[in-house]
Amino acid sequence: MQLIAADIENAMTNASWIRRMFEAGNDLRRTRGADQVFDFSLGNPDVPPPAKAREVLHALADSVVKPCGLGYMPNAGLPAFREALAQKLSHEQEVPLEGKHILATVGAAGALVAFFRAVLEPGDEVLVPAPYFVEYGFYCGHFGGKLRPVPMQGPDFALDPAALLAQVTDRTRVVLLNSPNNPTGAIYSQAALQHLASAVNTLNDARKRPIYLLFDEPYRVFAFDGANVPPVLPLSPFSVVLGSFSKSLSLAGERVGYVAVNPALEGVETLLAALTLTNRTLGYVNAPILGQKLALGLLHEQVDLTIYDARRKAMATVLSQAGLRFSLPRGAFYFFPEAPGGDDVAFCQCLMKHGVIAVPGRGFGMPGYIRLCCAVDLSIITRSAEAFKAAMAEFSAP
Amino acid sequence: MQLIAADIENAMTNASWIRRMFEAGNDLRRTRGADQVFDFSLGNPDVPPPAKAREVLHALADSVVKPCGLGYMPNAGLPAFREALAQKLSHEQEVPLEGKHILATVGAAGALVAFFRAVLEPGDEVLVPAPYFVEYGFYCGHFGGKLRPVPMQGPDFALDPAALLAQVTDRTRVVLLNSPNNPTGAIYSQAALQHLASAVNTLNDARKRPIYLLFDEPYRVFAFDGANVPPVLPLSPFSVVLGSFSKSLSLAGERVGYVAVNPALEGVETLLAALTLTNRTLGYVNAPILGQKLALGLLHEQVDLTIYDARRKAMATVLSQAGLRFSLPRGAFYFFPEAPGGDDVAFCQCLMKHGVIAVPGRGFGMPGYIRLCCAVDLSIITRSAEAFKAAMAEFSAP
Repeated sequence: MQLIAADIENAMTNASWIRRMFEAGNDLRRTRGADQVFDFSLGNPDVPPPAKAREVLHALADSVVKPCGLGYMPNAGLPAFREALAQKLSHEQEVPLEGKHILATVGAAGALVAFFRAVLEPGDEVLVPAPYFVEYGFYCGHFGGKLRPVPMQGPDFALDPAALLAQVTDRTRVVLLNSPNNPTGAIYSQAALQHLASAVNTLNDARKRPIYLLFDEPYRVFAFDGANVPPVLPLSPFSVVLGSFSKSLSLAGERVGYVAVNPALEGVETLLAALTLTNRTLGYVNAPILGQKLALGLLHEQVDLTIYDARRKAMATVLSQAGLRFSLPRGAFYFFPEAPGGDDVAFCQCLMKHGVIAVPGRGFGMPGYIRLCCAVDLSIITRSAEAFKAAMAEFSAP
Repeated sequence: MQLIAADIENAMTNASWIRRMFEAGNDLRRTRGADQVFDFSLGNPDVPPPAKAREVLHALADSVVKPCGLGYMPNAGLPAFREALAQKLSHEQEVPLEGKHILATVGAAGALVAFFRAVLEPGDEVLVPAPYFVEYGFYCGHFGGKLRPVPMQGPDFALDPAALLAQVTDRTRVVLLNSPNNPTGAIYSQAALQHLASAVNTLNDARKRPIYLLFDEPYRVFAFDGANVPPVLPLSPFSVVLGSFSKSLSLAGERVGYVAVNPALEGVETLLAALTLTNRTLGYVNAPILGQKLALGLLHEQVDLTIYDARRKAMATVLSQAGLRFSLPRGAFYFFPEAPGGDDVAFCQCLMKHGVIAVPGRGFGMPGYIRLCCAVDLSIITRSAEAFKAAMAEFSAP
């Protein structure tokens, strides 16, 4: 019996590498003991939410148990949340935004899916620098969109506008950019973004169906060594920015994100109305009310980034001492070092023998590298040093 | 410039009747004054959540501000929530369910969309008794599914299995049933459900792609006059049930629902894995964590149903005294009376002149009737009596 759709069956047999390695880690914990496994596979933000979350939640407990206190709201989100977020984003993006330009969403993922549903026709193409977050393919694929990864050059994987522009076709509808980047930690420069946006703006002058520049920014506050994450809305009227509080407030499980549309876009109301419709009819209906109220109460807070920075520095030391080649990430909380010799799957298998769980780069559209997620306790990183060294010694042996 | 997809643009120009009437109500409040408007358009459950919600939320405030306290979880939901829900549903559905048979979802809407994505191929048909909740068309349409409404007979709109079965084709993939029903308040009988399920079971013996019986049950606890809402999982291995806590706990804005798959289905693990994948990749990722924890704490509570019952009785009196023809609903919180003479839009316009906001039946695929939602304070219902009488006098005048 065919219980499920053919393309879903196909997707199930190609389980994501992240998930596969995470499960391998669970197996390994049983055989080696949990303290001898160094699991850098999954990115579940483990730094506690800001302490103020407790106070905000207690206040909510006292205020919401009343008629419609947890009820429906406008599909675009709580007006107070959208207004406050508009103020914050106006500052961040250096463009004056009002609440009406913001849609509260079920995380950044919900924002991406709602956006793709609103703008893609079947057969439309979404260009994305590779390596890339693999779920993107699903998000546009549900509606007949085709993800077109465009390889960037390692080891730093800086944005290469010319490489992206060379792949533009009549069917290109979106260029999707994630900076600070998962999995590379790269932060795209103002100059590269400007180059790309100028070219897209010129292309759009002659197009009936414009190319959008879609910026996925859940890691915006994760910028280290004084790195600057440039604002993106000023780059183009066709730039749209989305983000979430999953990482910045460690609220990943509550699913609160947003999408902000550029007031400079001619027809901005049409795009906003379309996003409101797709957000509603994709079954999200509205972003979770407790999450919106919690994020509103914590809008000017963030998790303790010094914890992430200490991990980043420790991981850099561990990898350097073991002899891996990598570019020090200035953003997000991932490392994307080279697999010695280029076989990322073989190298991950070797690492696993020594208790280290990493994800092969091919899981992000870039074989020859591995991804390490540093959303784990500092002690796991420091204790992994010998395991990395042993794996490198074994893997590099003739 | 074409900013959005053509089918979304088309959907936007056909705004839902519910939304249109709700907005007309807002205009009317400005001109007549809020106390002279009797708005029965939208179904935002307004009875407060159970008092225990406050205690549960305070306990959460003390427990979640810790590493991963609000973090990701398995995409299918919190194990403790799924286990507890399985126990509750085992009792309700008279089929032994385990946590693994349950998926926590972003409301019932999220469950419907995840299910349709998991099983529909483009061109597949979803049969639904009319009148029906109009969002169903979007939920399956996103993936090329076609909603096929099958008219039931008023005034009580009981389930007519023969009428549904007469519309089955090779492309029929789902029969979607909502009982207690929005908009009619009908509760489908055990006998009618059994008739339908037996026929579908027989059809499925000869089909490679089975027909699912999908039961949308957000109103299950809203049953009055001692009415029984029969369990549906025992009817067929192909029956799937979904629901939410939006109405039963007045948590509509927090978006917590579920889908439960029949353990008797051969290949049940495949369907569950597909639902877990679609729930993840549609951008829901997981149902909101605060909502799941709140619903877990309130699993054996429900809103005060005597409030809804009193409204139902009051509305019946108001409508009877005004001379409208209707079947007394035994479930949910809607009335679906006839529009005198058959023109539902004209009748709604006449009602509006007298301050009453109702939704034309054509907004639910059934012209000739109007829908009245009783999720409003009792006083609004009783105070609307004269307005209904005046509208009837005017509308029935030669």
